[in-house]
Amino acid sequence: MEIKTEFKSDIEIAQMAKLKPIREIAEKIGLTEDDIELYGKYKAKLSFDTLNKLKTKENGKIILVTSINPTPAGEGKSTVTVGLADAFNKIGKKAMIALREPSLGPTMGIKGGATGGGFAQVLPMEDINLHFTGDLHAITTANNALAALIDNHLQQGNELRIDQRRIVWKRALDLNDRALRKVVIGLGGPVQGVPREDGFDITVASEIMAVLCLAEDLEDLKRRLSRMVIAYNYDKQPVTVGDLGVEGALALLLKEAVKPNLVQTIEHTPALIHGGPFANIAHGCNSVIATTAALKLADYVVTEAGFGADLGAEKFLNIKARSAGFHPEAVVIVATIRALKMHGGLLKSELKKEDIGALTQGFANLKKHIETIKSFGLPYVVAINKFHSDTDLEIQTLLNLCRTENIPVSLTEVWEKGGAGGVDLAQTVLRVIEEKEANFSPLYDLSEPLEEKIRTIVQKVYGGKDVEFSPKAKKQLIEFEANGWGNLPVCMAKTQYSLTDDPGKLGRPTDFTITVRELKPSIGAGFIVALTGEVMTMPGLPKQPAALNMDVDENGRAVGLF
Amino acid sequence: MEIKTEFKSDIEIAQMAKLKPIREIAEKIGLTEDDIELYGKYKAKLSFDTLNKLKTKENGKIILVTSINPTPAGEGKSTVTVGLADAFNKIGKKAMIALREPSLGPTMGIKGGATGGGFAQVLPMEDINLHFTGDLHAITTANNALAALIDNHLQQGNELRIDQRRIVWKRALDLNDRALRKVVIGLGGPVQGVPREDGFDITVASEIMAVLCLAEDLEDLKRRLSRMVIAYNYDKQPVTVGDLGVEGALALLLKEAVKPNLVQTIEHTPALIHGGPFANIAHGCNSVIATTAALKLADYVVTEAGFGADLGAEKFLNIKARSAGFHPEAVVIVATIRALKMHGGLLKSELKKEDIGALTQGFANLKKHIETIKSFGLPYVVAINKFHSDTDLEIQTLLNLCRTENIPVSLTEVWEKGGAGGVDLAQTVLRVIEEKEANFSPLYDLSEPLEEKIRTIVQKVYGGKDVEFSPKAKKQLIEFEANGWGNLPVCMAKTQYSLTDDPGKLGRPTDFTITVRELKPSIGAGFIVALTGEVMTMPGLPKQPAALNMDVDENGRAVGLF
Repeated sequence: MEIKTEFKSDIEIAQMAKLKPIREIAEKIGLTEDDIELYGKYKAKLSFDTLNKLKTKENGKIILVTSINPTPAGEGKSTVTVGLADAFNKIGKKAMIALREPSLGPTMGIKGGATGGGFAQVLPMEDINLHFTGDLHAITTANNALAALIDNHLQQGNELRIDQRRIVWKRALDLNDRALRKVVIGLGGPVQGVPREDGFDITVASEIMAVLCLAEDLEDLKRRLSRMVIAYNYDKQPVTVGDLGVEGALALLLKEAVKPNLVQTIEHTPALIHGGPFANIAHGCNSVIATTAALKLADYVVTEAGFGADLGAEKFLNIKARSAGFHPEAVVIVATIRALKMHGGLLKSELKKEDIGALTQGFANLKKHIETIKSFGLPYVVAINKFHSDTDLEIQTLLNLCRTENIPVSLTEVWEKGGAGGVDLAQTVLRVIEEKEANFSPLYDLSEPLEEKIRTIVQKVYGGKDVEFSPKAKKQLIEFEANGWGNLPVCMAKTQYSLTDDPGKLGRPTDFTITVRELKPSIGAGFIVALTGEVMTMPGLPKQPAALNMDVDENGRAVGLF
Repeated sequence: MEIKTEFKSDIEIAQMAKLKPIREIAEKIGLTEDDIELYGKYKAKLSFDTLNKLKTKENGKIILVTSINPTPAGEGKSTVTVGLADAFNKIGKKAMIALREPSLGPTMGIKGGATGGGFAQVLPMEDINLHFTGDLHAITTANNALAALIDNHLQQGNELRIDQRRIVWKRALDLNDRALRKVVIGLGGPVQGVPREDGFDITVASEIMAVLCLAEDLEDLKRRLSRMVIAYNYDKQPVTVGDLGVEGALALLLKEAVKPNLVQTIEHTPALIHGGPFANIAHGCNSVIATTAALKLADYVVTEAGFGADLGAEKFLNIKARSAGFHPEAVVIVATIRALKMHGGLLKSELKKEDIGALTQGFANLKKHIETIKSFGLPYVVAINKFHSDTDLEIQTLLNLCRTENIPVSLTEVWEKGGAGGVDLAQTVLRVIEEKEANFSPLYDLSEPLEEKIRTIVQKVYGGKDVEFSPKAKKQLIEFEANGWGNLPVCMAKTQYSLTDDPGKLGRPTDFTITVRELKPSIGAGFIVALTGEVMTMPGLPKQPAALNMDVDENGRAVGLF
């Protein structure tokens, strides 16, 4: 533990870092200036020509970073992702990062970025956390252009016979704005539109974000946009973007957003940061286009998926990897001693105390996620993300718990030491990849009925007894199979805090039942969302929003951002 | 008239053009690669350092391009602006363009860009007309972040005692979406916000756009944001952004948007395209920061203001030039024979017929605008923007009408010939600047009461008899003076089609009265809006939106954009 870092915030460390021009970073991965499109000196997009040229190259290896069920104490998954790639480069391996891009909305609410932390960060973090290269703005615009075109269709005669009570396409903003969750629009008389109920989601919850992240190229993007269900007509049949005839216009609005963004870590490791769909009503992974490009440009690609292994890794493997044909070589499961102690029964206020009993108890949560990764046929390594408050005895206890069961494990200190703090983890991952063959297969076949797919996830991934369906969900199961959607994978929307659908049940619960309240078709993205419990798709702001402390000096330097 | 151009659309001509890397364009005006921030190969922003460095340089000369009252037949003001600057460079003068950036919303509705036409265009027109460098998205985000913070303030206890019935800050989207004009938000119970009436404007109508365009630098931007009135409290006193304490956060969101964008014309003339406020409820001019930078970088800066001289030029001179200390050297008044014939009584369907009588009659509209420009103490040139349908006799008639009255006039063919078609205009402008000294002064003193300022504009600019105020406006005149806003300039919101407040009255009406229906404070921008008639601040889409014809090919090339 070095004093110099103890009092520095992430933004202070980031602003101290000396970035290299992004052209130099591109050169390191064999890209010339003509292959990239600069956005300032430190950000660039890969051009369509570059993406095409890469197609014939060989693939590197994917390493997926996931975690135990997260707690408000934090597990540091992005930080480990960044630090692991830095460590690979430190030991002479050619590694890249493929991460999600953060949403601007929450930045205005509660302090905290989404670009790693300490000395394991991607830069320029201010830009990445604010407008970045405008991808989210393009998605917001496409989302709302579609909404405007739907309401204009109603206004101009409603040729498609859209039932205005059954319009499922919502508007979106990349902001935390609870007052827009439920609204009535089209008021003010006949020339101001058709009155109806509507609502706004945060942009990352838009199906367009999921579509962009699963599309293989611009043509595939257009096909997926065309399939998106926007409403039902008076015969209760689905109406799609293709029926409205505007998939071309939406794809045009997204033509720059679909290109991956190249940035760098503090240690100059190249990183593609692109796409960031919700990890509950969507699949929570960065874009297929970016991951594919990274695989062509590096020997090792470190990527992460949202929330814990029960949500993010499950969806990465059953949805994204299946759709894109990815075969991960290994999975890193991040755990912290603080979070394991919460899973072992401690309150957040009690985490600073050494507590071997709680730690040993909480270990069961980690064990469940290890079993899940094994059931996908994948090698794994546990990464203990070290915090200052961890005691030597706690660390030894956790290391021993793993070693007793032959669980590959590494203590990482990437927050404090950057890549140097992840060298042991990198070496452990390399050893595991060498020793154990990845034998990846998804947990269910697409040909199984939707109900069976959900049951498989509940039993094999969550460790639950069974799944129950609400009367509404039962009706939808029949309708969705009739609509020809039965062969799609399932995207579970569940609390990230627990293996169950009750956020209060930590550790490793058993003998529980999951209730599916409702299904939601995301036909453009290519999955059926199964909603368990309430899912918030438009966050609110807290009593003292972070915006109150933000400023910019006369030279354009951010103040109080994190 | 050359056959080769006759069947080409603006986008075809634009896509044929060979752009130079924007670095080379920057070099032409003495800027190095370090002075600019690239957005791809053909767009760049000027950095804060660059803007600071320029401060000590001498100013070039401003030439303002305005027009007669526009008609649906089109007058081609942007095209003449671009062509005139190209022509200056052709005859060896160092000229730059300072233009507004277009709104994306209307692009989805009705075909037609805002980047000039034919061979007098700024490029890359697809980018400029779509997301460009994200300025409008940043403004949308800042506008809506402020709205979310206001509603959150209500939700969290309403310490400022904001009267939720008197919130004047509206939400915004850069889209044509009539269904969002009048909405009810905050529905769904106590945790979903405070229910209230609200509405969305198109982003260019946001006061933040006007603020960004009148700010001198980032600090001035913050001061102006702080002064914006967002609501009235239960004592009917104004509540500002400063009271809410979020001007720093809003300025942070705008820190990139405030930097001017450098692009080029088809003939590689450097152009700064930056900011585009509405020309009715705002002042309709590009940003002060961009115009100032252009004046430091070129000997001649050609800029335009929205709508005809009664709106755009009046506001450029009374608001923008006064605020920024600009002293224009000359004004170019664009007229077309087609539009003058409409002012002379023809219908749009009759414009292809030669009609010397209608042309002579319509000339009165042009004369009024000439008198207006003279009353500001400024030299001027009439530019006849030639159309294919104009007959030789019509052209000769218009030239003679001007010459008889010693009106400097030039026939321009910049749409068809680019800069070569504007050489005579450029030479005429240079001669006028040399022969006639500009003696610019605004038409009214800021110390006059608001009522008198409005009367002055109605009488001296519109040629009206007097102004009447609605009972509401009369009450507001008293309130606004009491709030200390009496010393601000006035921003008239009036139909662009007529010198009167009735869009049907073309030509040069006399003896009319203008009715001011309502006043609106734009304290951040620094003016009081006087609304005459209804002003549409959120457009709708037509029955067949342009979006239906749009597409993008697999290489990212726009199809059907214009």
